[in-house]
Formats: sequence, structure tokens, C-alpha cells
Amino acid sequence: MEYSVQRTVEILSNTPDVLKMMLRGLSQEWSENNYGADTWSAFDIVGHLIHGERTDWIPRMRIVLEHGESQPFEPFDRFAQVKDSQGKKISDLLAEFGRLRAENIESLLAMNLSEKQLNSRGLHPALGGVKLRELLSAWVVHDLNHISQMAKAMAFQLENEVGPWKAYLSILRPPDPR
Amino acid sequence: MEYSVQRTVEILSNTPDVLKMMLRGLSQEWSENNYGADTWSAFDIVGHLIHGERTDWIPRMRIVLEHGESQPFEPFDRFAQVKDSQGKKISDLLAEFGRLRAENIESLLAMNLSEKQLNSRGLHPALGGVKLRELLSAWVVHDLNHISQMAKAMAFQLENEVGPWKAYLSILRPPDPR
Repeated sequence: MEYSVQRTVEILSNTPDVLKMMLRGLSQEWSENNYGADTWSAFDIVGHLIHGERTDWIPRMRIVLEHGESQPFEPFDRFAQVKDSQGKKISDLLAEFGRLRAENIESLLAMNLSEKQLNSRGLHPALGGVKLRELLSAWVVHDLNHISQMAKAMAFQLENEVGPWKAYLSILRPPDPR
Repeated sequence: MEYSVQRTVEILSNTPDVLKMMLRGLSQEWSENNYGADTWSAFDIVGHLIHGERTDWIPRMRIVLEHGESQPFEPFDRFAQVKDSQGKKISDLLAEFGRLRAENIESLLAMNLSEKQLNSRGLHPALGGVKLRELLSAWVVHDLNHISQMAKAMAFQLENEVGPWKAYLSILRPPDPR
């Protein structure tokens, strides 16, 4: 598939509603339990996505456009949500994510990025030189990664209930150590 | 999490809307491309889920309740959707899946299954003896498995666009040969 900002936005704009739908009307165990030591629950995942909206994707886009490779991105804190989400309800987190995402899509579209801008380069603190179009593509795949992870966290709540079907259900394989 | 029919239904009733939301307003490439040789696209996945509604979960429940272990289930055809979905639009498949799922949830709830019935056993053609509650749990995890797979099929459309971020995005690992 050829890259375009429009195709990026198609997925980005669906994600908040996908998450809301996955969690609609569920008993708390589905959203608050994780799938093994050092893994995330649905609740943790929504908090992580919120932090990304605040500090990662659009802020990094602005750094690329304003500073190119002369200023590396701030490293992304993968555990910020532990503090930020404390005491909140998942419905509040979902609403917050939806609001931030809508603002960020608006910011992205308002830039009306040219092909030249999409190919301009920034400096990732660990990955090195990256193009703006790669940053925007990674934003989309990062969404899909966490939708997939949320399904996994939920599936594991029935890990001990599916009996011999476990052999057929690849989502119940142990979390990858990487 | 303790098993209950109610908790089963919570997930089962969300899945059609989750899929609709994942595919809302997308360019065709997102839904029609797969993620490697012998893998499925979102379109294939919805067709597979439709076939499951027609021939797998509720029909098998009835076999357990009526025949116990004396009559093995019909083997499930994992490729029936190739023929069944031909020439259809994904929006039609999503509507069909939603309709069948709603009917099946109604059938499940109407049974008002007792603890004894949930523990009654049937005969899977490959897996051997299984409990009804395991069948119903597998139905839920099967949904979540295919939600996760759909996210993967979509993510792979940007596999060559994310540049060095690929190292961080576990959803882009090659499909499992198993």
C-alpha cells in the first residue's frame, strides 16, 4: 500500500472508537487484569496511548519540522501512565484519549504536509535518523499493536477456561520475552 | 476470572461492532490485503467468523446438550469463507455477521444453561472430550484472536513504511509458521 497522510488518518481516527467498543459494558476483570508478569491490562494500554498523544507523535512531528536532525526527540516514557492513570476510571481515560486524538488529527491535517516535508528527517534518541513519514506510519502501527495487545490481555482472562482448545488459540501463547 | 455465561456474552456481543469500527471508512487496501503467503485479510476474517456463527459454536452447543459424547462435532471448515464470501462487499459481510451473532447470543441466553449443563461433555473430532463451558470460552477467545489478527493484517500494509521503528513494533513480526 502506498503511504498517504489520508490513509494514516483513516486508522488513527477509528482507534478511540475501536477501544471504546472493545470495552463497552464489560465486567471490570476484562479491563483491569493483565496477561502475565510485567504485562499491561486494557486500562494500562489506554493510559499509554494517552501519554503518546501528549508527548510523542505530534510533538515529535513538530521537532522534525522545526529542527530536523539537529535536535533529538525526547525519549518516550513507557511507564508514565502508571502515575497518570491512577485513580481514574477507564471510561474517563477513553474519553480523554478520544479528545486528544481528535485534536492531534486536526493538527496533522492542518499542516497539509508536502511530499518534501514527509521525507524530511529527524533524530530518534535510540533509532537514529528517521523520516517524518516513518514517524506517522509508526503512529498507525503502534495503534494496531495496542489493539492487538488489548485483545490478548482480555483473552488471557479465559486462559484456564478453554480446555484443549488452547492448542488452537494462538493469542494464548505466553507473552514474548522481548 | 471466574467463568460465567454473562461474561461470555459481554465480549461476544461487542465483537461485530468492534470489527465495524476497525474497518469504518477505510481504503480498500486496509481490508483486502493479507499479511503474507497463506494468511488472511480482514475480509477473509469476517467471512470466517460468519461461517463459525453458522456451523460451529451454537450448533456444537446443541450437539453437546442433545448427544453428549456419543456424537462428535462436524469438523470446522477453515476455508469455507473463500467460496461463501466471493463477490460480496465487506459491509455486507459485517452486517451478516452482526445479524447472525445477535441471533446466536439470543439462542445462548434462551437456554438459561445450568451449572450442570455447562459442565456436560461433548466430543471434538480432533481434541477429544470437551466441556460445554470450554466451548463457550473458546468462542470468546476465538473472537479476540481474530480481532488481534485483523489488527496484524492491517499493520502489515505499512510494514515497509515504518523505517527503523519496525524493531519496536512486535505486531510486524512475521506470521507464525504454526
